[in-house]
Amino acid sequence: MKAVVEAIQASALMPVEQALDQLLALADAAPLREVQTVALAEAQGRVLATDLVASLDLPPWPNSAMDGYALRMADWQGQPLPVSQRIFAGHAPQPLQPGTCARIFTGAPVPQGADCVEMQENAVLGDDGRVTFLQALSPQQNIRPQGQETRKGEQVMAAGTRLGPIELGLAATLGHGHLDVVRKVRVAVLSTGDELVEPGLPLGPGQIYNSNRQLLLSWLLRLGCDVVDAGILPDDLARTRACLADLRDVDLILSTGGVSVGEADYLGAALREAGELALWKLAIKPGKPLTFGHFQGVPVIGLPGNPASTLVTFGLLARPYLLRRQGVAAVTPLSFPMPAGFDWPKPGNRREYLRARIEQGQVRIYKNQSSGVLRSAVWAEGLVEVLEGTTPKQGDSVRFIPFSELLG
Amino acid sequence: MKAVVEAIQASALMPVEQALDQLLALADAAPLREVQTVALAEAQGRVLATDLVASLDLPPWPNSAMDGYALRMADWQGQPLPVSQRIFAGHAPQPLQPGTCARIFTGAPVPQGADCVEMQENAVLGDDGRVTFLQALSPQQNIRPQGQETRKGEQVMAAGTRLGPIELGLAATLGHGHLDVVRKVRVAVLSTGDELVEPGLPLGPGQIYNSNRQLLLSWLLRLGCDVVDAGILPDDLARTRACLADLRDVDLILSTGGVSVGEADYLGAALREAGELALWKLAIKPGKPLTFGHFQGVPVIGLPGNPASTLVTFGLLARPYLLRRQGVAAVTPLSFPMPAGFDWPKPGNRREYLRARIEQGQVRIYKNQSSGVLRSAVWAEGLVEVLEGTTPKQGDSVRFIPFSELLG
Repeated sequence: MKAVVEAIQASALMPVEQALDQLLALADAAPLREVQTVALAEAQGRVLATDLVASLDLPPWPNSAMDGYALRMADWQGQPLPVSQRIFAGHAPQPLQPGTCARIFTGAPVPQGADCVEMQENAVLGDDGRVTFLQALSPQQNIRPQGQETRKGEQVMAAGTRLGPIELGLAATLGHGHLDVVRKVRVAVLSTGDELVEPGLPLGPGQIYNSNRQLLLSWLLRLGCDVVDAGILPDDLARTRACLADLRDVDLILSTGGVSVGEADYLGAALREAGELALWKLAIKPGKPLTFGHFQGVPVIGLPGNPASTLVTFGLLARPYLLRRQGVAAVTPLSFPMPAGFDWPKPGNRREYLRARIEQGQVRIYKNQSSGVLRSAVWAEGLVEVLEGTTPKQGDSVRFIPFSELLG
Repeated sequence: MKAVVEAIQASALMPVEQALDQLLALADAAPLREVQTVALAEAQGRVLATDLVASLDLPPWPNSAMDGYALRMADWQGQPLPVSQRIFAGHAPQPLQPGTCARIFTGAPVPQGADCVEMQENAVLGDDGRVTFLQALSPQQNIRPQGQETRKGEQVMAAGTRLGPIELGLAATLGHGHLDVVRKVRVAVLSTGDELVEPGLPLGPGQIYNSNRQLLLSWLLRLGCDVVDAGILPDDLARTRACLADLRDVDLILSTGGVSVGEADYLGAALREAGELALWKLAIKPGKPLTFGHFQGVPVIGLPGNPASTLVTFGLLARPYLLRRQGVAAVTPLSFPMPAGFDWPKPGNRREYLRARIEQGQVRIYKNQSSGVLRSAVWAEGLVEVLEGTTPKQGDSVRFIPFSELLG
């Protein structure tokens, strides 16, 4: 890690992609290796640890796609056929008696000997219990062949897949009651600053409420992390050091605020004396200063302290790092080109991520993008990206990242 | 509800918008009224029950946007100013002594009497401890005024807002340790069909694994519902009736499979004899048949049984219904116009929702859209909409709905 940290320090204003690449390389170098076997009901939000291979064909046998009648096509010569059995879903059929048809329902196994299912709308059941077919028949019609969806032995999900409702539904289809998952990543959340007070307590002179702690705790839980709430660090070096030493068992210490070149930077001082500290100046706005380092071997990411910066840097940098630590391959949020509903006046030397929403098919930005503003983020539906050196005008294509892609 | 149900039954192939409007009207008519007060840490995924009004100004006092020096502009005549105090974030300053400046750090309160903050990069601290400013100063520069973000008494979140990390961060900023939320909506999940076996158990002849239960249980939990797992309904009328009667306390019975015009439809029979049952034929593919009704006053939504149909109809119809029952105003997922990466051969009379993903800036569809295929949904990143009667070609604009918008 030392070489990487030094390479990072050498550069000036680091492009966002480069910071992300560096973080992902650091994550790849420190994967979580413990595997746990959990019931499907407990597997939501976890990450698959081993490739999932189909242990059966899907469907397991040819089955009917319709409510109707199964028959052998050669038996249908225009004379009505008697019904020799009724086959419901979930029941094993008898082989089809020659010269007869079988009443069959959607999802039921097609009986041995039948090569065609006709839907009931195209059949007439006579008073004598015999069935006449009204239209020409084709071989295999309305039969879902065995293994159409999946063949036994095929890989259906790769290790590193995040497990949501759809993935768990697929695992269930294949009969898996349990899955092997990567253990949860353990993250300690630290806020720094004497000015911070927890919500619900009275505010003293010069104090403000701590919003980042709640933002990050909620967000980390949504990402499937084990969260250690390490509270607010006091502005005191000895106590900072003691607090960090207590966090030996986590996979990441995530701090907000406090790491700067300022004189009251006790977290930075503690990291410098018992670890490593890289101060990145990112070409990103909000969120320029980002810290990466370690304290006695435990990785530390220090996010800037104002809430909008925390939002952007956690979403675009810390989130993918944490997912990758758990082995997730796909860590990039979906984003969509959309016409700008604004004029951007001045090219910047940092990539801007503006709180924005979609209105009448265009991206509108919140009027006040001052960096202290979570209210704008509640109004917004996502972030719009304005690249370095560009001045998009009304109608130009800009990239929009929905919050739903970042928050889960 | 009766009038609505009858109006629905009268129509033939119902457009998706109409079905959604009907469901939302039914949800609006049966809102959950119980309010609970919960700690912020418990409020994630809940719905705000009452408007949230700011109880303080944000920021609560004028504060410095920079590390630097606070001064009264009139005092700066080109002669270096002595430093009369140091103001850290979280500490209350003294009024500024005339003819001096104050060392100040980001976020710290601007002292009374100061009308300007100069950043440290533009100031020189001399050996005599006096500060010289290198550039012209402007009134109020680098000062964030009191109430810039929010004024006391302003509404910052409306009742009906879903509470995620950003919303909880904002509530924390305003000092709220607890919030009033709507109670969780209680949903019973029922699967129907003798052919279904739970994952982990051996598969008998003609049987298949139950995937919808896992899909829906996981999904409902992500939507913040209280879930009652009512298991697999047997294909038997008396036991179906008994099972439904046990679900008197839920807000919705959600079933998959089993309601049709088929002969083995015991759920439909039970609803017809002790409630109401509307069978909708929706202009949607997959997922044409949808049931809405009630059993002894408890609303019932019956989704089609194959997994792809369940996915589409739950995501587009049942999800917004359930959110609206909790009072959520914004229930429509974001969707984005994207160029088609496929040719659609034949106009349909139903709106198709195809499992799709974004590749090279285009929407690609899974090769096999046969409705039994959850594997395609794992491959996919969302659904692409092909409107009734249209044949989009490569490059034409189509609407893409990311799964992230539907699953949370």
